[in-house]
Amino acid sequence: MVRVGATVTAAAAQVGIAVEQVCGGRGTCGKCKVRLLTGRLAPPSEAERRHLSAEELDGGYRLACQAAVVEDCTVEVPWAAAASGVSILVEGLLEPVALDPPVQKETLRVPPATLTEPFADLTALQRTYTGAARLSPSLEALRALPGALRAAGGLVTMVRAGERLLAVEPGDTCGACYGLACDIGTTTVVGYLLDLATGRRLAVASTLNPQTRFGDDVISRIDLASHDPGGLEALRAAVVEAIDSLLGQAAEAAGVAREQVYALAVVGNTAMHHLFLGLSPAGLGHSPYVPVMADPLQLDARDAGLHAHPEAQLFVLPNIAGFVGADTVGVLLATRLLESDEVRLAIDIGTNGEMALGSRARMLACSTAAGPAFEGAQLSHGMRAADGAIDHIELQDGHLVLHAIGQGKLRGICGSGVVDAIAVLRRLEVIDSTGRLRTSDQVAALAGAELAARLVPHGQGGAFVLAPAEETAIGGPILLTQRDIRQVQLAKGAIRAGIEIMMQELAVAPEQVAEVCLAGAFGNYIRPESALAIGLMPHLPRAALTPVGNAAGVGAQLALLSRRTWQDAAYVVDHVEYLELSLRQDFTRVFMQAMMMQ
Amino acid sequence: MVRVGATVTAAAAQVGIAVEQVCGGRGTCGKCKVRLLTGRLAPPSEAERRHLSAEELDGGYRLACQAAVVEDCTVEVPWAAAASGVSILVEGLLEPVALDPPVQKETLRVPPATLTEPFADLTALQRTYTGAARLSPSLEALRALPGALRAAGGLVTMVRAGERLLAVEPGDTCGACYGLACDIGTTTVVGYLLDLATGRRLAVASTLNPQTRFGDDVISRIDLASHDPGGLEALRAAVVEAIDSLLGQAAEAAGVAREQVYALAVVGNTAMHHLFLGLSPAGLGHSPYVPVMADPLQLDARDAGLHAHPEAQLFVLPNIAGFVGADTVGVLLATRLLESDEVRLAIDIGTNGEMALGSRARMLACSTAAGPAFEGAQLSHGMRAADGAIDHIELQDGHLVLHAIGQGKLRGICGSGVVDAIAVLRRLEVIDSTGRLRTSDQVAALAGAELAARLVPHGQGGAFVLAPAEETAIGGPILLTQRDIRQVQLAKGAIRAGIEIMMQELAVAPEQVAEVCLAGAFGNYIRPESALAIGLMPHLPRAALTPVGNAAGVGAQLALLSRRTWQDAAYVVDHVEYLELSLRQDFTRVFMQAMMMQ
Repeated sequence: MVRVGATVTAAAAQVGIAVEQVCGGRGTCGKCKVRLLTGRLAPPSEAERRHLSAEELDGGYRLACQAAVVEDCTVEVPWAAAASGVSILVEGLLEPVALDPPVQKETLRVPPATLTEPFADLTALQRTYTGAARLSPSLEALRALPGALRAAGGLVTMVRAGERLLAVEPGDTCGACYGLACDIGTTTVVGYLLDLATGRRLAVASTLNPQTRFGDDVISRIDLASHDPGGLEALRAAVVEAIDSLLGQAAEAAGVAREQVYALAVVGNTAMHHLFLGLSPAGLGHSPYVPVMADPLQLDARDAGLHAHPEAQLFVLPNIAGFVGADTVGVLLATRLLESDEVRLAIDIGTNGEMALGSRARMLACSTAAGPAFEGAQLSHGMRAADGAIDHIELQDGHLVLHAIGQGKLRGICGSGVVDAIAVLRRLEVIDSTGRLRTSDQVAALAGAELAARLVPHGQGGAFVLAPAEETAIGGPILLTQRDIRQVQLAKGAIRAGIEIMMQELAVAPEQVAEVCLAGAFGNYIRPESALAIGLMPHLPRAALTPVGNAAGVGAQLALLSRRTWQDAAYVVDHVEYLELSLRQDFTRVFMQAMMMQ
Repeated sequence: MVRVGATVTAAAAQVGIAVEQVCGGRGTCGKCKVRLLTGRLAPPSEAERRHLSAEELDGGYRLACQAAVVEDCTVEVPWAAAASGVSILVEGLLEPVALDPPVQKETLRVPPATLTEPFADLTALQRTYTGAARLSPSLEALRALPGALRAAGGLVTMVRAGERLLAVEPGDTCGACYGLACDIGTTTVVGYLLDLATGRRLAVASTLNPQTRFGDDVISRIDLASHDPGGLEALRAAVVEAIDSLLGQAAEAAGVAREQVYALAVVGNTAMHHLFLGLSPAGLGHSPYVPVMADPLQLDARDAGLHAHPEAQLFVLPNIAGFVGADTVGVLLATRLLESDEVRLAIDIGTNGEMALGSRARMLACSTAAGPAFEGAQLSHGMRAADGAIDHIELQDGHLVLHAIGQGKLRGICGSGVVDAIAVLRRLEVIDSTGRLRTSDQVAALAGAELAARLVPHGQGGAFVLAPAEETAIGGPILLTQRDIRQVQLAKGAIRAGIEIMMQELAVAPEQVAEVCLAGAFGNYIRPESALAIGLMPHLPRAALTPVGNAAGVGAQLALLSRRTWQDAAYVVDHVEYLELSLRQDFTRVFMQAMMMQ
């Protein structure tokens, strides 16, 4: 129910849409431009005639603070005019954020110079711009400025990153403003193309990290970059080329030009961060494991070798420590642990396990050499979560029921499958509380002959047959060996020890932890009950277990969509305390105990 | 007379050398490093042992705040340790300025990371740096950082422009820090290579502006850049290449590498400014003559196409208006008119005449189409101030005595010669007060037959023979024609009218003007008495006439040597009022009158 004669601003406010009023609704800034789609508004005011061209008036454009409602009507509020109350929800994000990208477009109508007001083009632009900042133009923007000002009757769109004027385009191009968020994983690189004007995700593209051809794991790449002349440059060029190609793919899929991508954000672990920027990772290769930098870095994307808009800005999220990288910062931004009143825990498991525990009051982070066990690597029949991988194992009526990816024969077991397998075998007492496979006799007595028959000799300690040879495509059975179990114990022990030491340091009791955010592919696929069963984490009676997907990638997307999130990245680095576990006298003791099964 | 036991800081202060004490002399910052050359100081304190390496101590390095004087000694205070009270006098500059370049080097000794303090390299640098700014590193600096930190025991030199960390170099390279100041004239481009550590000028190189092959004058280049596709780029590339080549020449002459040039400053008129940056000068080609920008611009020199240090900063002085450019800002910075309590006038005469009049209270600037008459162009036998040019004419015992440049035969007359010629002929009554050449009869009666015989028919209005054919190398006499006199009258009339209108606008009486600064080559060569005789300026009874040389170039040099001067450039643009003479109703009347001779 809107009063006849109310302004569009007032009417919009009644339905919950805040139209930004830069000049306080006095009709002097011309920024609250909206467009009438159906119905009628009162005739334009003098202020509207001053700020809007005849074309715009014909096209239904009006100033929201001036135009009066006279009957039912529909009005479009362009993003540029909308106040920062607009919220978006990124997939995988727990809470919506205000859309306020660090790189933004906005239109200005710049009056022409006259003999009495012979302002330089840039001065005229600056005078029309109502923001507080003194614009600092790029050479590109200056070169485009005079042509843009004269092409469309003074209507120009400026692309701005804070006070930096990146570009000036003729007419209103606000609709075409895109960004690419990039998560550089050790194995996979993912790019998310975002519409910065709406916050929508338009396309996702991913590729194998081409650095894998120089070495599968982080350490071998650090070695190569540190000791081989040309190694660093080869690794840098490979990943930059991959990102450039993802940018092209995503842009093509979304039907936009790569020159319309004005912003990029990057996360990755500290080594990936360094290799992407061409910074020596040598310091990460030995104690005390120091990175080159731990600050957020904003630079021209072209300087990093990326081909987007020539003045596109690159936002590189900061690292916390040598082995707690920008990916963890991304997780913290996505989960907002630092804004939490209650104590929460985030775990991101990959080649390393990174963990953060705390609340608004105090936050710790640490990293453990989780080992690649949870990625399926270094296990007898471990593999990635791909076709033929056993990814889940259930116990039904005392029988093991395997679930695998795809329709073909079995080829191996991936991280979530291994965790299930150990959890189930522990429950069946095939594995004892120290992680040892019991003997056939013991198993026959405790769990029956059928299971006992699946114990076979294998190296030291034997193995358990998960799938007999006839069900597999590998010409033999798929085994879980005693050595595999020890690998998982080492990995989960390191993670659990890290969590327990952080809890000790913060003096947090298990019942005080309100939530555990499980990040990454492993966190998404693992069964929480199995994770608890193998003792991946201490018993946290009140904690909700929340899989948060690729939270690092979400953090990168948020940095592109929300200036506040980007600024928060520096806050995260300044406020998260890195805990060096190897300095703790009690680490070995806690670790040994954490390796035990429940 | 220094007390035994006094610190070097105290002793230096007694002889007038201020050693900067960043930490207040507590021995905690390690910045006041000095070197003992002769004599002896008390043994190093603990603080000195902490901040100085064994090598440095062996080499005589000490901390001025700690080292105690025990006998007569000589101590070298490096520039980095000297407080900003150090002053330099740039050739052509009226007063010394404090040496405080916008791009500076300074050494830091960064402690290595430890397990208990595993700071990232950049964080460790930032913690050691005692300045207030949070350093914003270039990618180049980040890439060099880890190697530099580990090469010389943590001793590094950082190259800084404000908070921007341009580069990090291993060891102490403070001695090698150079800048190039560049004055882009319509005809000539001059580069001054400066030692930023001492303020000394090491080399000067100059070359013809290669844009002259596209057109001698500014207007034809504006036309080409505005209307010919590719014209702007051709003009831009030509002058950038010329500057790059001057940089190479000057560096070679001084024995420094072009990669050791970390800063460049550029002045020029508005059109030269635009063409150098690749900005369209189209707006300068027609009323209301607006430039693209009037703000100071700092950018990466490489973005402008210059090849110095990869992260070298380029400081482009601002324009005041379409025809009052960065060169005039340079003149105002060199002459410090805006700091003057008394009213002063600056005149820079080239193809155009730019003038500024005022004081601290209020400053006006204007530009007049002086025409190239004062550069010797567009006169019957006009030429530049080169070999064979008559550059001065005196009256001795009623006879004209010519002075020419070089030893050869006469080839023509340059600006200062023309002004002398007209002044002398007016004094001899060969020219009347309206600028008309009198008839032979009149001259015979007023000045004698000898001079009358030198009047010859020539087009409309005749001519005066300055040098007979037998004295010249051009196969005929060198003439001053009636048309030449009219050209000079137009030029000087425009300048004088500009001055008079500024005086009117400021309500300044002639006796209030304390000084006239004559800038540019013409200002240096013209005889003040001749300038007054032809009425180039109003009679200013109390004004000192001061030739100030290439003040625009001095302004560019100052911008490289003094942060304050660079900052003042923005102040100049904000505080100088541009006076558009064509808008003045009284301009024509004043101009007509100003064309008269005294």
